[in-house]
Amino acid sequence: MSTQIAPPGLKGLVVARTRTGDVRGQEGFYHFREYSAVELARHRTFEDVAHLMVEGHLPDEGESAAFAAELAAASTLPHALLEQLLAIARSGPDRGSLARLRTAVSLLGSVEEFPATYGAGADQVRAGVVRLIGVVPVLQAALFRLRAGMPPLEPRPELGAGGSWLWMLTGEEPAPEHAAAVTAYLVSTVDHGFSASTFTARVVTSAGADVASAVCAAIGTFSGPLHGGAPDRALDSLDEIGTPDRAREWVRERVAAGERIMGFGHAVYRTTDPRAVLLREHAQALGGPLAELAVQVEREVVDALAELKPGRELHTNVEYYAGVVMEQCGIPREMFTPTFATARIVGWGAHILEQSGDPRIIRPAAEYVGPEAPAPLP
Amino acid sequence: MSTQIAPPGLKGLVVARTRTGDVRGQEGFYHFREYSAVELARHRTFEDVAHLMVEGHLPDEGESAAFAAELAAASTLPHALLEQLLAIARSGPDRGSLARLRTAVSLLGSVEEFPATYGAGADQVRAGVVRLIGVVPVLQAALFRLRAGMPPLEPRPELGAGGSWLWMLTGEEPAPEHAAAVTAYLVSTVDHGFSASTFTARVVTSAGADVASAVCAAIGTFSGPLHGGAPDRALDSLDEIGTPDRAREWVRERVAAGERIMGFGHAVYRTTDPRAVLLREHAQALGGPLAELAVQVEREVVDALAELKPGRELHTNVEYYAGVVMEQCGIPREMFTPTFATARIVGWGAHILEQSGDPRIIRPAAEYVGPEAPAPLP
Repeated sequence: MSTQIAPPGLKGLVVARTRTGDVRGQEGFYHFREYSAVELARHRTFEDVAHLMVEGHLPDEGESAAFAAELAAASTLPHALLEQLLAIARSGPDRGSLARLRTAVSLLGSVEEFPATYGAGADQVRAGVVRLIGVVPVLQAALFRLRAGMPPLEPRPELGAGGSWLWMLTGEEPAPEHAAAVTAYLVSTVDHGFSASTFTARVVTSAGADVASAVCAAIGTFSGPLHGGAPDRALDSLDEIGTPDRAREWVRERVAAGERIMGFGHAVYRTTDPRAVLLREHAQALGGPLAELAVQVEREVVDALAELKPGRELHTNVEYYAGVVMEQCGIPREMFTPTFATARIVGWGAHILEQSGDPRIIRPAAEYVGPEAPAPLP
Repeated sequence: MSTQIAPPGLKGLVVARTRTGDVRGQEGFYHFREYSAVELARHRTFEDVAHLMVEGHLPDEGESAAFAAELAAASTLPHALLEQLLAIARSGPDRGSLARLRTAVSLLGSVEEFPATYGAGADQVRAGVVRLIGVVPVLQAALFRLRAGMPPLEPRPELGAGGSWLWMLTGEEPAPEHAAAVTAYLVSTVDHGFSASTFTARVVTSAGADVASAVCAAIGTFSGPLHGGAPDRALDSLDEIGTPDRAREWVRERVAAGERIMGFGHAVYRTTDPRAVLLREHAQALGGPLAELAVQVEREVVDALAELKPGRELHTNVEYYAGVVMEQCGIPREMFTPTFATARIVGWGAHILEQSGDPRIIRPAAEYVGPEAPAPLP
């Protein structure tokens, strides 16, 4: 047995070779497969980017139509489960949407008998991944509406992924600029390197478990407050500040008190999060007092942090403008993180597919540091 | 960013310091905290060993009674969920017990609002762990009985953990030697080093997620065929062999054909799995033709493997005699792996508690090996 010791939190330790993409923290750049994620978010549909992640290449016209049709078919709500979904929808607190999604995905995995990835062909694994990419947004939106006493709505793929998501939540035809902003957000969010939830999905898959088990597990990790998938927290700060003229004082007080300001700083980026740049553009194009406030507060925070914590390179992260854009588009605040999750399913799926090609269980070691064993039983 | 590369499957890589216990593969020895696990299985109750894992020390008489009472209180079936449990029980295939348990634990975690481990006090994390140690066997047995159209049964702690488990499955008062054998199995199985499911539970916890999320994720990993928690597979081989006189030929044919024989070989042990030794004793004490066949087949397999694969050190693992003992005690075959899981909850809980004391997310890196990025969008 080797005694190689991993760095704390496995930080910087390369545990896999991947073709799914990468994050270059120093450059403020990330990519899906070989394409800039931000460029994809500007120019491609969510479905085409899902194809890129699942199949490894951007689709041509025929492939694009075929994959969109496949995703549409995969988005069918399991109507036999409606009664159980209603019970799940009514369980737990308002902020428990991810926990309800976890339960619904687990139940779906059980009912639809997702096969173990070990021993299944790549086609079967792919089918499970596509099923979840298609159905998770529909499930999550259905749980939201059932909880509010409203019937679930069918997706409307012709509105784009963002428009369809807004439709399924609100039952109202979204403004085209809202649909476009949310689609850009969803595309920009499908993957982001080896996050803890992605790693979780790969560990579960490495044991040969089914795709639903891996996604359930990833949802659990994703729900952790340290994962960083909580755009609502940054927005709470903006609410507290209220108006641009109060920004400077609020920020200086927080920073001086050593408090962390949500929406700033990232584990990997040492410059502005490229997702924040993309979403700031959408926020400013959509306009209004919230966008103005956000831009003003960003300036104050970055200035204050540069002055008070020189060298720390604390910049705006994805949470910050994601919250602003979702608020502008009318997404209820408890659905911010679930919106993030419905996109991230794509990345988890791509990683599950890649991991399922490696028939080796991920089983590290630990160093026992307790009292000498065996001690006699008392 | 460091470029330290992890060994494949993270094998042998030390990713944590732990006080929960260890497995010494070369010696065929494993321990819970500082005590021999086999000695604990011989001399201590399941509840006392759960106390050891959760609290870090074996209880004195007063602590033992108090903890048993606490576990009994924590084993209350959530009656408000009965209707949903019935629906979950009816979902999926017969062999889908673990997937059903995953759904039930997810739902329970939602309804009972398990708090995020990050930010919660150690007491709250401990309460979640104790709740799941208490309720998971009751949930799993209830799902089994509801599926079969029978009402769930209350646990009977006075029969010991093994006896209570047999009671909750069958509704019959178990023979004392059956209860004792199953208790010994459960105790021997509460933990086993850094298995992939245990590691999963720790990764989920490291993001600050709640205990139910971590256990759901661990159940998912545990269900994977590479995890090695499937005592029914070894028994299927014994069924196929049928009688001791056919053992030699069957084994030689399989080994010569390069087939893997279930129940033999282990990722860590280079000698007989100490759990197999313990359970062989119980199997032989319970007696009968299955035990005789198992002992005979074990001898043939070990001989054949030593001769045909010299130096491989392929010995009987826990699955082999666990299946025999559970069959002897009347546990239905589709409940073998779930029986394993109901014990392992204790180990997952101890690891979740330990991990929750480390406020650092587990987020490794990956090496991008795809085409150079960014490529221009087509």
